[in-house]
Amino acid sequence: MSSAEGVGVGLLGFGTIGTGVAKVLLRNAAIIEERLGFPLRLVRIADLDTETDRGVDLDGIRFDDDAEGLIADPEVRIVIELIGGYDVARRFTLQSIEAGKHVVTANKALLALHGNEIFSAAEARGVDVAFEAAVGGGIPVLRALREGLSANHIQAVEGILNGTTNYVLTQMEESGEDFEVVLKRAQELGYAEADPTFDVEGVDAAHKLALLAAMSFGVRIDFKRIPTEGIRGLEPLDFQAAADFGYRIKLLAIAKSKGEGRPIEARVHPTLIPSTSMLANVDGAMNAVAIRGDAVGPTLYYGAGAGELPTASAVVGDLMEIAREIRRDAAQRVSPLSYPHGELKDNPLAPLGELTTRCYLRFTAVDRPGVLSHITGALGEEGVGIQSVLQPGRGEAGESVPVLVFTHPAQESAVRRALETVDGLPDVTAPTRLIRIEDEL
Amino acid sequence: MSSAEGVGVGLLGFGTIGTGVAKVLLRNAAIIEERLGFPLRLVRIADLDTETDRGVDLDGIRFDDDAEGLIADPEVRIVIELIGGYDVARRFTLQSIEAGKHVVTANKALLALHGNEIFSAAEARGVDVAFEAAVGGGIPVLRALREGLSANHIQAVEGILNGTTNYVLTQMEESGEDFEVVLKRAQELGYAEADPTFDVEGVDAAHKLALLAAMSFGVRIDFKRIPTEGIRGLEPLDFQAAADFGYRIKLLAIAKSKGEGRPIEARVHPTLIPSTSMLANVDGAMNAVAIRGDAVGPTLYYGAGAGELPTASAVVGDLMEIAREIRRDAAQRVSPLSYPHGELKDNPLAPLGELTTRCYLRFTAVDRPGVLSHITGALGEEGVGIQSVLQPGRGEAGESVPVLVFTHPAQESAVRRALETVDGLPDVTAPTRLIRIEDEL
Repeated sequence: MSSAEGVGVGLLGFGTIGTGVAKVLLRNAAIIEERLGFPLRLVRIADLDTETDRGVDLDGIRFDDDAEGLIADPEVRIVIELIGGYDVARRFTLQSIEAGKHVVTANKALLALHGNEIFSAAEARGVDVAFEAAVGGGIPVLRALREGLSANHIQAVEGILNGTTNYVLTQMEESGEDFEVVLKRAQELGYAEADPTFDVEGVDAAHKLALLAAMSFGVRIDFKRIPTEGIRGLEPLDFQAAADFGYRIKLLAIAKSKGEGRPIEARVHPTLIPSTSMLANVDGAMNAVAIRGDAVGPTLYYGAGAGELPTASAVVGDLMEIAREIRRDAAQRVSPLSYPHGELKDNPLAPLGELTTRCYLRFTAVDRPGVLSHITGALGEEGVGIQSVLQPGRGEAGESVPVLVFTHPAQESAVRRALETVDGLPDVTAPTRLIRIEDEL
Repeated sequence: MSSAEGVGVGLLGFGTIGTGVAKVLLRNAAIIEERLGFPLRLVRIADLDTETDRGVDLDGIRFDDDAEGLIADPEVRIVIELIGGYDVARRFTLQSIEAGKHVVTANKALLALHGNEIFSAAEARGVDVAFEAAVGGGIPVLRALREGLSANHIQAVEGILNGTTNYVLTQMEESGEDFEVVLKRAQELGYAEADPTFDVEGVDAAHKLALLAAMSFGVRIDFKRIPTEGIRGLEPLDFQAAADFGYRIKLLAIAKSKGEGRPIEARVHPTLIPSTSMLANVDGAMNAVAIRGDAVGPTLYYGAGAGELPTASAVVGDLMEIAREIRRDAAQRVSPLSYPHGELKDNPLAPLGELTTRCYLRFTAVDRPGVLSHITGALGEEGVGIQSVLQPGRGEAGESVPVLVFTHPAQESAVRRALETVDGLPDVTAPTRLIRIEDEL
């Protein structure tokens, strides 16, 4: 490969992100070459839809539906996998690795489920798999974790990793409207997909957290065991009560280590966080990841977590890093997950019941004398200390009203037992909602 | 070099940061080796003071005052320069490069003044110079700029780069106390040095900005031409007025590009920024850098900008990156300033007079009918539009009172001409204070 030729890349999947990648590679070709000292050449694109005009000048780029041909093409040194989904993406990724091609992907779902297989194959074949775009979109947070903070024992990672849910939460808070109303508007505005399940249920955030936890703590990717709770069921009242006590509600993906060899903590759920914290100020569709290391202390990384061009920024950044390594014959300079893949540990997650946090509890009970004492009694029975109780409204006789409780730090299993008792009371008319509080970020 | 031996490093300067580096290298040796696949060995330390006990176990580490011996030692592959200052640091850095050693430094003053010479020597000799710790302490922001965002045209960099001044500003805002009172307390608490000139006058922030601007825009380091204004002269009143209009006051280091070939903008000064922005929420001694790229949009990086262990986190991160490159014979994989040093452009800075911003102006005038009309008249004469005028207090007859003005966007040269007129008025009793406003971050 002569210097003038540069490094050839092939793009699998010419959808929104694929189009963004092609745009950035073409528009910013001059500055990319200036920084690298050689060009990065998009030589080939494959997609089943070869008809739609993406508004990209494809002059000199071969574009067809032949993915396997692209992978086998000797001009293609790096394959960009932007197909999405599991099966086809997995097959083409493994096939690319097999063919000795480096892979750049934005597919967090693929890596959360098949990452162990993929990284292991890449390590064996001596190629790189880069995936900066898979977590936090354009934010170069994986790079920070893999290299910038590599001298640290990572203690905690806490992220707002899903723009759709953060947009919905921000809107609910601002407008005081119900979840369904806000979600519908988000769908109309393009902030939420027609089927928003993966976002709203926290699955997308859990995919990303699985990758962050693996990189932070040197554990194998273990998405399926991460306890995951979405944002359905939150009510305008919850945001108001949170604000009154100096909190905001965010869907956080949290992973913590209590020290070498001890089970790590990983979970995704709506969380009350102090409104003065940096994470609390991440509004709308933006993402952020807070990372605490034993030497560096608290750090935070903020930016657009999705979108055509921000995601493309991360993909092309990865391409440039791999191209530099190809040039210096230094592939696998850094392990994709920070640790050599063979050395990742199987680390059991700490059961949620063992978690100790403060909680916000929204009880729903008939407004009748004695109810409050039953609720506080059940909590007291389990040793759950109460910091404050709010009864924001009075109901007509026999009507249900919310009772809001902020607890002191308590073990989750104890809180759950108390809730079971309370939810069995005749005057309690709906299941109690528990939202965990994180005071230290 | 066998795999068991690892990569040897030598430490020049065993002060606060040097001690932190030794601590992190020793305490976190196991996880560092786990991530690298080989050990990083601190083989030698040199400092003039060989007496003081730093609380670090130096077993197996040669410690003396022989800096030149350390540089020449074949076991030392990477020299860590933590001497500080200019002359000696420059000499040892160039000597290390000459000897074929890679260099890691936290010395922003050195690089701001002698960076062009140092990077050019390193490029010629084929060694790396890494300096993540020089900007933003432990925040891996240079790495983000150099690799994570490398696909972008960088449009703007805006940073809170000095913890001392941010601490003082946060305290002034919270307590309503005067600058000198707060500074004195900061010195007592160790947040400010006995001679705080470099911090308070914005010089330290300008050093760092010179490096960020070079990396962002591919221009030669040009510290001396950056217009720099410190935080002396700010009054409690300014914080109050800012807050009333939804702003906070931060010492910002700002660099912007208006596009290839056009002069870049670089400046350090107290700035009114919207209190809802991420940067406005950076309190106390913390640092943050906001970077906007054409593809990625706005991003932000936050963390401790100083301190023994946070700074050591960045230094050791650099050591690990260079050690990986040594292992793969891939030194200079990336140019330290993002661009090959020979290709950095001499880019003239845009004169401050050509800047267009909104301004906050604090006039001091005798409380007498007609004064306000003279002030607003002088601004109007120069075409400076006024958004609002505040007269927060009434003076006794003949006493001076502040008159606060928020302008619409105006060219700085026009504002300066108006201020010259106003400050020449007999009723205006003190020079007018101008604080620039940045609405878009």
